Amino acid sequence: MIDIIAFDADDTLWHNETRFQATEAQFAALLAHYHPEDLTRARLFETEMRNLAHFGYGVKGFILSMIETAVELTEGEIRGADIRTIIDWGHEMLHAPVELLDGVAETIGELAGRHRLMLLTKGDLFDQESKLARSALGEHFSAVEIVSNKNAQTYRSIITKSGVDPARFLMVGNSLRSDILPALEAGARAVHIPYQTTWAHEHVDDAEIGGRAIEKLSSIRDLPAWLLGVRS
Amino acid sequence: MIDIIAFDADDTLWHNETRFQATEAQFAALLAHYHPEDLTRARLFETEMRNLAHFGYGVKGFILSMIETAVELTEGEIRGADIRTIIDWGHEMLHAPVELLDGVAETIGELAGRHRLMLLTKGDLFDQESKLARSALGEHFSAVEIVSNKNAQTYRSIITKSGVDPARFLMVGNSLRSDILPALEAGARAVHIPYQTTWAHEHVDDAEIGGRAIEKLSSIRDLPAWLLGVRS
Repeated sequence: MIDIIAFDADDTLWHNETRFQATEAQFAALLAHYHPEDLTRARLFETEMRNLAHFGYGVKGFILSMIETAVELTEGEIRGADIRTIIDWGHEMLHAPVELLDGVAETIGELAGRHRLMLLTKGDLFDQESKLARSALGEHFSAVEIVSNKNAQTYRSIITKSGVDPARFLMVGNSLRSDILPALEAGARAVHIPYQTTWAHEHVDDAEIGGRAIEKLSSIRDLPAWLLGVRS
Repeated sequence: MIDIIAFDADDTLWHNETRFQATEAQFAALLAHYHPEDLTRARLFETEMRNLAHFGYGVKGFILSMIETAVELTEGEIRGADIRTIIDWGHEMLHAPVELLDGVAETIGELAGRHRLMLLTKGDLFDQESKLARSALGEHFSAVEIVSNKNAQTYRSIITKSGVDPARFLMVGNSLRSDILPALEAGARAVHIPYQTTWAHEHVDDAEIGGRAIEKLSSIRDLPAWLLGVRS
């Protein structure tokens, strides 16, 4: 039996990575008269990784990393109008409608009648709260935990706070690195629902999986049936 | 009797506003050959207020607002090197040592032996966690709540979650707007310890205080004695 089902948000409940990738493509195009687009993307990723320890995850850090990369790659020649364009992309990303993944609205609504549901996401607090509000899913979650990083210690602490046996806590998410492996390490159960694309930073080698059996579903629509299997 | 003492962080436990003001002064100086410094400060404040609903509080949003203001005030003539300077200020702010206010280390250490202490701050999740880690105060707090905004509903929800009677929950902070008035509205007790300066956004008119008696101390050093008064 499962007492609490915790859901990751970005790329598990709603589209996120595709939006970042679309902005990256615009960014590479903006600098195309300075550098080949592949080089611009690679340098942006380097800047993002260097800044992750200072900025954390989220749109604001991403925009700052784009501006920083633009200044570097143009040796300071970037025009103010282009900086303005990058900032405007940030505002657009922060305001874009939240697009739920296929099956999310129905499945979350159905499961909320039978389980305690938790939203458990990393990222920028303000941005995640705003997305949750725009998603119209808020009423289904009895707890919302927004954390700066998801490691085994994060899961242990949240499970302890929730007062349930780790074996009765299920984590559902698209990222092996952030949702599945650390939840399993903390003694919880986990179901992996891959998204259509994975951010390079979240990529996991087979060696890191270490031969563990990972429960995997291709759609959140399959989760209620999977839960019936756990019960029996 | 008080069961939980919740402390605001910025400008209650450690210096914050003075650091923002120092960076603002550098920013006004950077643009001094375009505009008088007062005008630059006023425009930056306008940009910050407009962006607050999109970015929330914190250093990343502040840096983005400075860049946006610089592009506007120079009609796009701002040089890449100046943008780079602004970004560097951001990195410096995020890494600066956390300077505790006078008396904080001793008083928090003393009170932690007798009460449950909570850190209850608004702002950027990643930045606040990082400051708490650098402050070396973390071990004294049995709970840490980082929220995107502090209104009466925020306090009600945190007090309910903590399981104590609101009348036995004490909020201590420097901001009438964020720490004192909403905590009182939620039925908690509150002690105001003003900081040496107040961000214009946190300013409260006498009318908003509405004749309520506000408990006020000039230093956190006076809090243990004040608590003895509550007890008797």
